[in-house]
Amino acid sequence: MYQVNETHDINLTSWVESANDPACEFPIQNLPFCIFMHPENGPTVGVGIGDKILNLGYCGEQALLPAHSNVAACDTKLNSLMELNAEQRGELRACLSELLSDSGSALVGKEDAFVEMDSATFEVPAQIGDYTDFYASIFHARNVGSMFRPNNPLLPNYKHIPIGYHGRASSVVVSGTEVRRPVGQQAPAEEGGSPGRGPCKLLDYELEVGFYVSQGNELGESISIDQAESRLFGMCLVNDWSARDIQKWEYVPLGPFLAKSFATTVSPWVITMEALAPFRCAALKRDEGDPAPMDYLHTDENQANGGVDIKLEVALATAKMRESGHAPQKLSSGSFTNMYWTIAQILTHHSSNGCNMQPGDLMASGTVSGTTRDSRGCLLELTWDGEFGNPVPGTQRTPIELPTGEERKFLGDGDELIISGYCQADGFRRIGFGQCAGIVAPARV
Amino acid sequence: MYQVNETHDINLTSWVESANDPACEFPIQNLPFCIFMHPENGPTVGVGIGDKILNLGYCGEQALLPAHSNVAACDTKLNSLMELNAEQRGELRACLSELLSDSGSALVGKEDAFVEMDSATFEVPAQIGDYTDFYASIFHARNVGSMFRPNNPLLPNYKHIPIGYHGRASSVVVSGTEVRRPVGQQAPAEEGGSPGRGPCKLLDYELEVGFYVSQGNELGESISIDQAESRLFGMCLVNDWSARDIQKWEYVPLGPFLAKSFATTVSPWVITMEALAPFRCAALKRDEGDPAPMDYLHTDENQANGGVDIKLEVALATAKMRESGHAPQKLSSGSFTNMYWTIAQILTHHSSNGCNMQPGDLMASGTVSGTTRDSRGCLLELTWDGEFGNPVPGTQRTPIELPTGEERKFLGDGDELIISGYCQADGFRRIGFGQCAGIVAPARV
Repeated sequence: MYQVNETHDINLTSWVESANDPACEFPIQNLPFCIFMHPENGPTVGVGIGDKILNLGYCGEQALLPAHSNVAACDTKLNSLMELNAEQRGELRACLSELLSDSGSALVGKEDAFVEMDSATFEVPAQIGDYTDFYASIFHARNVGSMFRPNNPLLPNYKHIPIGYHGRASSVVVSGTEVRRPVGQQAPAEEGGSPGRGPCKLLDYELEVGFYVSQGNELGESISIDQAESRLFGMCLVNDWSARDIQKWEYVPLGPFLAKSFATTVSPWVITMEALAPFRCAALKRDEGDPAPMDYLHTDENQANGGVDIKLEVALATAKMRESGHAPQKLSSGSFTNMYWTIAQILTHHSSNGCNMQPGDLMASGTVSGTTRDSRGCLLELTWDGEFGNPVPGTQRTPIELPTGEERKFLGDGDELIISGYCQADGFRRIGFGQCAGIVAPARV
Repeated sequence: MYQVNETHDINLTSWVESANDPACEFPIQNLPFCIFMHPENGPTVGVGIGDKILNLGYCGEQALLPAHSNVAACDTKLNSLMELNAEQRGELRACLSELLSDSGSALVGKEDAFVEMDSATFEVPAQIGDYTDFYASIFHARNVGSMFRPNNPLLPNYKHIPIGYHGRASSVVVSGTEVRRPVGQQAPAEEGGSPGRGPCKLLDYELEVGFYVSQGNELGESISIDQAESRLFGMCLVNDWSARDIQKWEYVPLGPFLAKSFATTVSPWVITMEALAPFRCAALKRDEGDPAPMDYLHTDENQANGGVDIKLEVALATAKMRESGHAPQKLSSGSFTNMYWTIAQILTHHSSNGCNMQPGDLMASGTVSGTTRDSRGCLLELTWDGEFGNPVPGTQRTPIELPTGEERKFLGDGDELIISGYCQADGFRRIGFGQCAGIVAPARV
């Protein structure tokens, strides 16, 4: 497990003054990675610090980093850095912490080594070989299950297996990318009738948290639960956009497909596991009578510290709201402590059949929902006016009211959906995840 | 649609004499691509001709190819060649046909430009960005559905949607790669009980045909059914290894996951759409009363020529059979004419929600099964002794008897599973797909 050390010290400050503002989400204790578009050099590795991005390519060229990181820092995606082992990644963090805190550092006064964060544009940070989406919130699974199987909301495998499915890697886009409303087949109005086809009518988001794999495993081998933490590189925010009407018609028997593959948005920032060390917490306590995780998914350490206390928020701004100067309206709050399966369990399970994980692979948690109504992580749940066991939830959908007088049961064209997240704990600086945002563009017809 | 032209002429011969043997599956009319391991240069683009592989990298270096292909030919994967448009690909084929038929060609006597096919080792031919597996044989879907839902074998969406799911790209391996038996969770013996975990007991293969995407589409755009054929690069054989016991327990509600992701084997050879031109045929005639494909999946041309008449065969050799000198035993024959959805419909549907396809993406057909018992494309169907509507098929499983006295209901350790395929039609040379083979290695425990 990643240790709290001097790089997390609340009293550590940076000579990049903006990082020391208590409201800043990118203090020197954070040091998240990204790929930004450098005006001259194109895609470049960056590190967030205050209101600036440190050009890590510059540091690599100047050989300011540990020997194992200089070449990797000059790459156009984070994969080469992700491939470093946990010890090397710790050394890189210590070095960055030193470079950005020491007022005598080689970077002081080197304006070329920084760009303004506000004006930067970003890319998907990794070359994602495979993207896998999980279903790790039992509260989400139970809510959704209640709508489709009122008497049997949770399937028998749920408490034994971190359920997941392969997603589409090509359509993972970075925050800020427009998301076009998909066109697709929709279920017949009556049983045995002909399906319709047209722009999705029930466009939804899913509030998720993702992680990128560091070192993977060879095909036919696996990553044990003991090893899993050291094989995680860092975390991000994910919006698993979902076309509910397409999903409902297509998903049997092989799972979600075109209802998801039109776009998945990730935040530009990857918050390292090292930065998250102070915010680790116990795995969700299972209910009395729930089975314990099987041996291959269990260690005392994972039980005690496998969780990550990330606070999440979802907000919506319609085009009309933006035009009339309204701030985005909060839709829900979430907590990543609500997950039934830890990220280590997810990685271990995924590789347990011998499937090879690779640096830069992305795994997402599935919708993060909690026990309360205002912690439901998607509109399918949020505007559903039923509670568990309600047999006809579709007929009881309460729209969200917006300050412009508009209403939403699902997303409209022009809607911007904004996910944000941060970690906060006594005695530590707040660590921000930044934003994962996207505006819905009208369907192509 | 790809046209039959002089490169298909049955009278065309090569100065590579072995290609002219009527039994040879790699005549000059074929010209399939591969990536082989060159003894000095590593992964290299190759073209099969007779019992040799033409080193296309050599041709590229010597600028013997059309201008658009010389650099692409020197790559270590086929993606750069796949990215050529249909016209350019046709020019490349014409050039190769000329180089290998003209006895005055620049390649005659250039021994450096060839390696022996028998002694070559191969790599997965493309950098596969995304791999998607479909379910396009209605006979397979109906057989499998009968086992799990005796009264309702085909789900209502089947005749409207080419059903598919995202697969795992990282674990696609080339023919000849050992496939390790996966370990996984298996359903509880009785309802409400605890699941087991151990080596897969019901290891199966699935006989499939795959295709690689040529030029794709931008995110948010799509590939129309009119465009789809020109966006196909070529076809291959696929074994979608399946762990039936793992699948049965994990697959609800999000589809197959670890039951598939431990390995998918592809043949080394990619048979181009140009080579397949003489073997195009009508799409499967739908039963009276079946819905017509929706407009976005329909053209008269696709109906008339969207099929591909590929003859398929599956054979098994256990370790004991190999040791005792027995030839592999044929398990089944299949025909790719039996698919309910054409490859153009599959590609069009996949991109119809705006999902971006990329050169080198792999799509597989799903198990190719026909109407007869000996055309069932997996052991789940083959050793099942029921017919449609049999309510308890699991209790009626008839093993396959092998010449060593061994029996198989599912695959054993050491079993080699060999898929082969070819096209044959009056007035044309036979075009071989080669083999897609793998030996099952024991589970790691």
